[in-house]
Amino acid sequence: MIVALAGGVGAARFLRGLLAVVPPDDVTAIVNTGDDITLHGLHISPDLDTVTYTLAEAVNPETGWGLVGETWQAMDALERYRGATWFRLGDRDLATHLFRTQRLADGATLTEVTAEITSAWGLGLRLLPMSDDRIETRVTVEGEGEIGFQEYFVGRAHSVPVTGVRFAGVERSTPGPDVLRSIRSADLVVICPSNPIVSIGPILAVPGVEHEVAARRQRTVAISPIVAGAALKGPADRMLTELGHESSVVGVARLYAPFAGTLVIDEADAAKARAVEDEGMTCVVAPTIMSDREKAAALAKVVLGA
Amino acid sequence: MIVALAGGVGAARFLRGLLAVVPPDDVTAIVNTGDDITLHGLHISPDLDTVTYTLAEAVNPETGWGLVGETWQAMDALERYRGATWFRLGDRDLATHLFRTQRLADGATLTEVTAEITSAWGLGLRLLPMSDDRIETRVTVEGEGEIGFQEYFVGRAHSVPVTGVRFAGVERSTPGPDVLRSIRSADLVVICPSNPIVSIGPILAVPGVEHEVAARRQRTVAISPIVAGAALKGPADRMLTELGHESSVVGVARLYAPFAGTLVIDEADAAKARAVEDEGMTCVVAPTIMSDREKAAALAKVVLGA
Repeated sequence: MIVALAGGVGAARFLRGLLAVVPPDDVTAIVNTGDDITLHGLHISPDLDTVTYTLAEAVNPETGWGLVGETWQAMDALERYRGATWFRLGDRDLATHLFRTQRLADGATLTEVTAEITSAWGLGLRLLPMSDDRIETRVTVEGEGEIGFQEYFVGRAHSVPVTGVRFAGVERSTPGPDVLRSIRSADLVVICPSNPIVSIGPILAVPGVEHEVAARRQRTVAISPIVAGAALKGPADRMLTELGHESSVVGVARLYAPFAGTLVIDEADAAKARAVEDEGMTCVVAPTIMSDREKAAALAKVVLGA
Repeated sequence: MIVALAGGVGAARFLRGLLAVVPPDDVTAIVNTGDDITLHGLHISPDLDTVTYTLAEAVNPETGWGLVGETWQAMDALERYRGATWFRLGDRDLATHLFRTQRLADGATLTEVTAEITSAWGLGLRLLPMSDDRIETRVTVEGEGEIGFQEYFVGRAHSVPVTGVRFAGVERSTPGPDVLRSIRSADLVVICPSNPIVSIGPILAVPGVEHEVAARRQRTVAISPIVAGAALKGPADRMLTELGHESSVVGVARLYAPFAGTLVIDEADAAKARAVEDEGMTCVVAPTIMSDREKAAALAKVVLGA
C-alpha cells in the first residue's frame, strides 16, 4: 500500500507516473482541500479535480488544470453581469462543481462525493480529501492583509509578496475517514512534489496527520518541488523565501526532515545532496522533471526503490 | 403607471407586446417566485428569467424559456456523474444562476439582484420579485404526495393529476419592497395570461397583495390564460379541473372576480362573454393568442383601452 500526500498539478503528474508502475488498488492519495473555494454558491475543490482530471487523461495539457477541449460559454455570459470571472470555470468543469455541491447539500461528505466523482471517471486509486471539514488556506499579502488562497493564487496570479499563511479551521478539524488509517497501514508514504507551504502544509496540519507520517519516517519519501532553486510551477520558491525558508532542496529538507526519511532531488541539485543529508534525510538524486508520463513513471520507480 | 402580475411564458409575451406600445419606465412587473428552485446549490428563478430573456429578445423561441443559441456542455458533462439533469440548464443560462447565487450569498436581496440582471440586459421596465422571502409552490400529486413545483412541472412534465397546491412560507412572507406601493400607485393593474393557480396564485397569496389589487378592482384587467377551455401552454386547464374549478373563461372569471373588474377573453370564447359578466366582471372580447409581437401589442392596446 502506497499513500501519497498530494496537492495539484505536480502531485497529479507524479500519481499518473505512479499508476503506470503499480496497480491503482495499491494507491491512496490524500489530497489538499485548503484551496477549496465556494464561488457562485458552488463548492470547488481545485486539487481534487486536478488530480482526477489528470489521472482520467482528461486534463488540459496546456494549463495542467481544467478539462481538455473545454468551452467557456458560462464564463463569457457571466461577463454580461460583471460577475466573478477571475476564477475560470469551464462549462464541462462546472458539471463537477454542480454535482459536488448538490451531493454535499444532500448530506454526502466530501469523501463520499469524491469517491463518486473518481468512480465516474473510472479511476482505480482512492482519493481522500484530507478532511471533510472546511479548512481554508488564508494568505497574508503585503500591504493588503489576509485574503483567500485562490484570491492570492488566481486573483493576484500569485505575484504579490506573502507575509503569512494559515489554515483557518484546521485546529477544530478531523482527518477524513481512513486518512490516518491509510497512513498507518502504508508500506510507503510519498510526499508529492507539491508546494510545501500551501499544498503539503495543510494536509500535515490536520490533527494527527503529521504525527502518523512522522511515526513512519523511515518509510516516508518526499520529492522536492524545488529544482535548482526554483519551483517548476507556482509560487513555492518565492513563498519559501518570503516566509523565511530557503528556496532550495536544502530548505525543503529542513521542512520535511522531522517526518520524512528520504528526499528525492533533481540531478540539477546533485551538488546539494550532502547538504540535504546534513539535515538528517537520506538523499536520492534522480531526474524529477515529469515532462511526460514515462519520465513520471521513472521517477515513481525511483521513489519505490528509495 | 402600469403594474403587471406575471408568471412565465404567457406573461413574458404579453409584456413584450406592452413594451411595444408604452414606455418601459411606465411598467412594473411583479413576478412569481414560487417556482424558484435551488438546484446544484444555485438559486434559479425561472419566471424572472423567462420574462428577462424574452424582453431582451434573447429567449429561445422554440421553447419560450432559456436562451436562444444555447449550448449544453455542463448538462452533458453532468450525465457522467448521473447528476440531476432533468432540469435543463444551458451553459449561458447558468451564468445567470451563478451570478444570482453569488450576489445573494454576498447579502443582496433578490429584488436587488433582479434589478442588476435586468439592467445588464438593458431592460427599461422594472421587474420586482413578489417577495424577497423564500416561498415554495408545493404540489400534491395523486398517489405520490407533495413535491416541489419544478419536480411536478418539469420532472413529471406536468402530466400527473394534482390534488392540492400550497405556497410554503407565504404566510410568514412579506411583499418585496415597492410591490404594494407600485400596486397602490398604479393607473392600471394587469393580470397577465399566466396560470391562475401556480403563477398568479402565489403573487396574490403574499400578504397584502390581493388586498391592494382588490382595492383597485375597477382598474384591474385580467387576461384569460384559458382559450376555448384549454391552456395555450402548460397545465392550467387540467389543474383548474383537478382542483375543482371550471377550465373555461367562466372558471377564470370566478377566480378573478373578487379583485379584478375586467376579464379579456379570446374571440373563440365570445359566446361565454355573458356568462363572464354574470360573474360580476366586465368582459372584453379580443384576439388573445400572441403568436408574434404585433399580436401581443394589439392585445396590450385592448387591455389599455379596457
